[in-house]
Amino acid sequence: MSSVFGKNVKVSIFGESHGTAIGCVVDGFPAGVTLDRDLMECVLSRRRAKSDRTTTTRVERDEPEFLSGLKDGVTTGAPIAAIFKNENTRSVDYTGFENTPRPSHSDYSATMRYRGFSDYRGGGHFSGRLTAPLCLAGALCKMALRDRGVTVAAHLAQVGPLSDVYFDPAAITKRELEVMERLAFPAVDPEIAEEMKDLIRTAALERDSWGGVVECFATGLPAGAGSPMFRGVEPVIAGVLFGVPAVKGVEFGSGFAGSASRGSENNDPFRYDESGQVVTATNNHGGALGGITTGMPLVVRAAIKPTASISLPQQTVDLKQKRNTDIVVGGRHDPCIAVRAVPVIESAVAAALLDILLEGQQ
Amino acid sequence: MSSVFGKNVKVSIFGESHGTAIGCVVDGFPAGVTLDRDLMECVLSRRRAKSDRTTTTRVERDEPEFLSGLKDGVTTGAPIAAIFKNENTRSVDYTGFENTPRPSHSDYSATMRYRGFSDYRGGGHFSGRLTAPLCLAGALCKMALRDRGVTVAAHLAQVGPLSDVYFDPAAITKRELEVMERLAFPAVDPEIAEEMKDLIRTAALERDSWGGVVECFATGLPAGAGSPMFRGVEPVIAGVLFGVPAVKGVEFGSGFAGSASRGSENNDPFRYDESGQVVTATNNHGGALGGITTGMPLVVRAAIKPTASISLPQQTVDLKQKRNTDIVVGGRHDPCIAVRAVPVIESAVAAALLDILLEGQQ
Amino acid sequence: MSSVFGKNVKVSIFGESHGTAIGCVVDGFPAGVTLDRDLMECVLSRRRAKSDRTTTTRVERDEPEFLSGLKDGVTTGAPIAAIFKNENTRSVDYTGFENTPRPSHSDYSATMRYRGFSDYRGGGHFSGRLTAPLCLAGALCKMALRDRGVTVAAHLAQVGPLSDVYFDPAAITKRELEVMERLAFPAVDPEIAEEMKDLIRTAALERDSWGGVVECFATGLPAGAGSPMFRGVEPVIAGVLFGVPAVKGVEFGSGFAGSASRGSENNDPFRYDESGQVVTATNNHGGALGGITTGMPLVVRAAIKPTASISLPQQTVDLKQKRNTDIVVGGRHDPCIAVRAVPVIESAVAAALLDILLEGQQ
Amino acid sequence: MSSVFGKNVKVSIFGESHGTAIGCVVDGFPAGVTLDRDLMECVLSRRRAKSDRTTTTRVERDEPEFLSGLKDGVTTGAPIAAIFKNENTRSVDYTGFENTPRPSHSDYSATMRYRGFSDYRGGGHFSGRLTAPLCLAGALCKMALRDRGVTVAAHLAQVGPLSDVYFDPAAITKRELEVMERLAFPAVDPEIAEEMKDLIRTAALERDSWGGVVECFATGLPAGAGSPMFRGVEPVIAGVLFGVPAVKGVEFGSGFAGSASRGSENNDPFRYDESGQVVTATNNHGGALGGITTGMPLVVRAAIKPTASISLPQQTVDLKQKRNTDIVVGGRHDPCIAVRAVPVIESAVAAALLDILLEGQQ
Repeated sequence: MSSVFGKNVKVSIFGESHGTAIGCVVDGFPAGVTLDRDLMECVLSRRRAKSDRTTTTRVERDEPEFLSGLKDGVTTGAPIAAIFKNENTRSVDYTGFENTPRPSHSDYSATMRYRGFSDYRGGGHFSGRLTAPLCLAGALCKMALRDRGVTVAAHLAQVGPLSDVYFDPAAITKRELEVMERLAFPAVDPEIAEEMKDLIRTAALERDSWGGVVECFATGLPAGAGSPMFRGVEPVIAGVLFGVPAVKGVEFGSGFAGSASRGSENNDPFRYDESGQVVTATNNHGGALGGITTGMPLVVRAAIKPTASISLPQQTVDLKQKRNTDIVVGGRHDPCIAVRAVPVIESAVAAALLDILLEGQQ
Repeated sequence: MSSVFGKNVKVSIFGESHGTAIGCVVDGFPAGVTLDRDLMECVLSRRRAKSDRTTTTRVERDEPEFLSGLKDGVTTGAPIAAIFKNENTRSVDYTGFENTPRPSHSDYSATMRYRGFSDYRGGGHFSGRLTAPLCLAGALCKMALRDRGVTVAAHLAQVGPLSDVYFDPAAITKRELEVMERLAFPAVDPEIAEEMKDLIRTAALERDSWGGVVECFATGLPAGAGSPMFRGVEPVIAGVLFGVPAVKGVEFGSGFAGSASRGSENNDPFRYDESGQVVTATNNHGGALGGITTGMPLVVRAAIKPTASISLPQQTVDLKQKRNTDIVVGGRHDPCIAVRAVPVIESAVAAALLDILLEGQQ
Repeated sequence: MSSVFGKNVKVSIFGESHGTAIGCVVDGFPAGVTLDRDLMECVLSRRRAKSDRTTTTRVERDEPEFLSGLKDGVTTGAPIAAIFKNENTRSVDYTGFENTPRPSHSDYSATMRYRGFSDYRGGGHFSGRLTAPLCLAGALCKMALRDRGVTVAAHLAQVGPLSDVYFDPAAITKRELEVMERLAFPAVDPEIAEEMKDLIRTAALERDSWGGVVECFATGLPAGAGSPMFRGVEPVIAGVLFGVPAVKGVEFGSGFAGSASRGSENNDPFRYDESGQVVTATNNHGGALGGITTGMPLVVRAAIKPTASISLPQQTVDLKQKRNTDIVVGGRHDPCIAVRAVPVIESAVAAALLDILLEGQQ
Repeated sequence: MSSVFGKNVKVSIFGESHGTAIGCVVDGFPAGVTLDRDLMECVLSRRRAKSDRTTTTRVERDEPEFLSGLKDGVTTGAPIAAIFKNENTRSVDYTGFENTPRPSHSDYSATMRYRGFSDYRGGGHFSGRLTAPLCLAGALCKMALRDRGVTVAAHLAQVGPLSDVYFDPAAITKRELEVMERLAFPAVDPEIAEEMKDLIRTAALERDSWGGVVECFATGLPAGAGSPMFRGVEPVIAGVLFGVPAVKGVEFGSGFAGSASRGSENNDPFRYDESGQVVTATNNHGGALGGITTGMPLVVRAAIKPTASISLPQQTVDLKQKRNTDIVVGGRHDPCIAVRAVPVIESAVAAALLDILLEGQQ
């Protein structure tokens, strides 16, 4: 039991990189939400590989086919199932990794877990390709959230030494997020975006890769959503985010930087704003206190590790011959998976937030 | 539904800071584990307030009383319930916060969530005091893990500008962890420990507080535990850790630092060690790949925010009179809650790991 | 993970028959519900042993002690924990059953499950005594349901050849249920009640026992609660009911009798009643169609097996000496556990219904 | 969240009667199980409509298409997704029921639940057609159970006044179950089978329908599986069975009949059999005591209501015009859905049992 998350909205992900199809089932999704194909395409297109050498050259159309849960383009309340057919697979690229696990991939741990039965081709069920149905689920959740006045968007906050524009987390607006969620390359500052692309292309030429940080915001959240302790906003969101391949860190608000500061710096004073709403003057808490929303924007960052697939020679073991060996990972890879992780993080956060908001009022 | 976590071992936490008692129920705990009172006391004593001015002066004995699940000092497989009676409460300290929420506390969000019915005294169910039963549950899980060859220990890796000794995550040993888990003040380097204490005492005198970072390790894990995606090692652990009050960030292995690096730096080469075991030469992955253990030590860090309760004057709102106002938070507080969070993080990680290891073999 | 149920309201039961205390934690219970001690006592007193020779002579006061979740007699939204201290235990009665499992008790299966570590005294965690905290949780849920206009009550529909009064399930009223829930001996017809008592007392004298059927109703349910398939009204209620010791059958509406009938007999015509409400002319469906409430009264029956503990000589095995042997089960037992099961079934149904009603509107 | 069940093996069902496709995702299924197409076809063919006038005339090929989770015909441990394309739909048959809910169908309750957005065509997600993917999931679970020595089979124990052959639940054998699971018409006694068919055909001619009782057995279960209370064998199985459309009652062992008996009759003496195994002389308990298996055969019966769709004129309401009206339900229907429910009950029991057996040993 692993590829399922959610309590009120339950998302089940299935498929392998080189199988027939991948897809998802979204159970408990609200009835009466109109499918917005433009928003859906917006999320999916950001996850797709590009032909600008910042991503893998394995380009898939990734057109979802809906099997259930919709009637006349409107959700019925029944489970929504959708699939993406796999088209552009080159299993031959993966021949031979069966016994020589790729460093920092799941090949070795999965072999131990499934006693050799797991599908190693293209990472199988562990492939980043499985994030396509997660994005579809996320796009649906974004539609339901928009109906509730909530906007979620993410950007590529950092690649190697380069940082995107800083947003004041106490002041970020819905309008800024609506621009952010539509960026083809997901950095807000156009100059930084170009520098990031150059950095990534250079790494690709050097047969290497970069990690990055994705930052996600949500505006329009009511105060009082979420629950204390293990059903709080942070554990629910983190529980989904850490399920996304390559995520190795998650922080909310001032996060790790805040933990190096003093209370007098990190505490957020409560204030009434002009409209008579309770707000905080700063937003180091990132939108939730005691696991419960304050009504301030949600702020969460995810650390994405460098793409493990690099074409440089690497050391590994030969499990069959039980000796050390070298490996060169061929195939087509993303030199910086963080770029395409942006809509995935956005989707994971959207799904977690909808799950929290659908919690019965108590 | 909030104060419950776990799939195979289910821990339910209850109580309020100023109620009759706090406690926990641990359901699904293995039968046949002998209660080790020494280990239990070791965990609980590290969470207790000290009289050395590095913690609050509200000292509680925190002696757990077992209600069920044990027979002749051995677990029976039935749910284990235990309580801690509340003794040293000064509700008068909290009079008046009902309408003036303390900055960066849950007072405001909880009031919105529970329409004014929540118990605001001492933070009620949101109090850090609720971590005592979590530590008890963690101590029990540590016993069951030890029976399986797994050792879990945490230390205070950072307070403000001060860092504790660095451990090579590929080389850390069970023996080092057995020393670590017994430190009264939870920094390994004795000189750094003294500097940290001084820093904390100074903050207390200045009526301020510090945040910190807790780092936790586990050795002896088998390869092949955990599942892909949302039942992976990272999401399961993070889902518990973010349920601990004051945790605002979690990272595994090289975490956020790794996300600023290149694949050639961050990838961990597989090697056979002298005993014929597959290991990784470095441990930037932190013990799990694809959500599944590799057999390398688990490495996780949690960012603890500065104690929100500081005695300096702060800005807040008066919810009754609907205007801005000032507040001075009296009472007895920890100038650096990260100190006492160390056994809590250790406990949360232990509970999550046992939950993963008890997953049925498939 | 076993002694926990519920999705939105999570009830965790703990304790053993001969331990320090038994109790429950109710997590996710709505804030703002006033504790009605009269209603609570009403439920608990029906479960208590009587001195009229229809029950065991092990009488316990069963006074719950609340540990958390209440402030000034009103629920706070935090987990409600309560315990019952065990007072009247005679472990000596159970000496010797360790190796000679009592027929139709859990002694043998529990020994196999927990490798001999389970507490066999008085049935340990499997004891019917554990239904006391379930009744407490049920009483709380009945309070929250009453605030929502829902009334739940059960009666002893059958003991051996004797049947209580028949209620037309399409016409049963809230007023009838309010009478039903307060009956000391839980049969509605006073003459039948006396006959049932005589039957039970006779069985006791004969060192034997009777089974029985408990029937439970709920009025005031809205139409449209519950979900299709596995979160339907029937599976959710049955999942709790079958967790009650001694329940071996559950049926809704016309149940097994309906399955021997024809569609033209069993179908329930829809009609508008005088107040313009959609109702069904008959109520063979028992309140739910497709797992979702219709607004008609809920009707559910539970088959309670005869008390397994009888004082007649019985055949069993000696697990130590690995041979067949005989056994006489001493101690104090209920000659018809169905009598005291009535408030337990009522409580289980109430808890399941509240769980369903608190499902977030979608 | 409704169409998902299971803790260790999680089955998610999706689709509508008149949509593109229906299907399931089975998450947590063991790796290394060889797909047995013969066994799969055996289960699916029993659920298919026949051309012998005992079932609907809507015949579908119901060929599953696997999308994931298999490699070279062996399970990989990754989620198994499979779909059935819908082929033979006549939505026109259902035109007009939108406002005139069919008696004893989910039309009315679903409309209230989903505010008019649910797909009413052919029952939508509530259709009995959704049991096809449940049978597929069940067939997979039967394969995994067979690898563990467990055999599960069901038969049509009763239709109207006719009863199939009686099996002694203490003596039923694996061999008998292997015959039972392959019967085209699912009654074991050939003469009774013919009588049942005649009865059903007559009802069809009379535009009416019959209910029935399905009885399911499992042999080869180890002693000691399952957990007390709400994760016991009975609640887990019943929670799945009551999720099957048309199931209105479930009983284990002697069930309701046992509740009308005395302890001296209903108790099952323990005995050593010739092979030195602990057994019970009778099997009124039905395979589980205290929620935990005894090693005796599992015995469970499900009451199936008469098919709600009958072609006789019936009374209903017009929700649009808000008045009483009449309805004739056209379309193609099963005159006794219990016939085709047999492999569905078998599948539900198999899935629940595998879920229980995969529980981590504690």
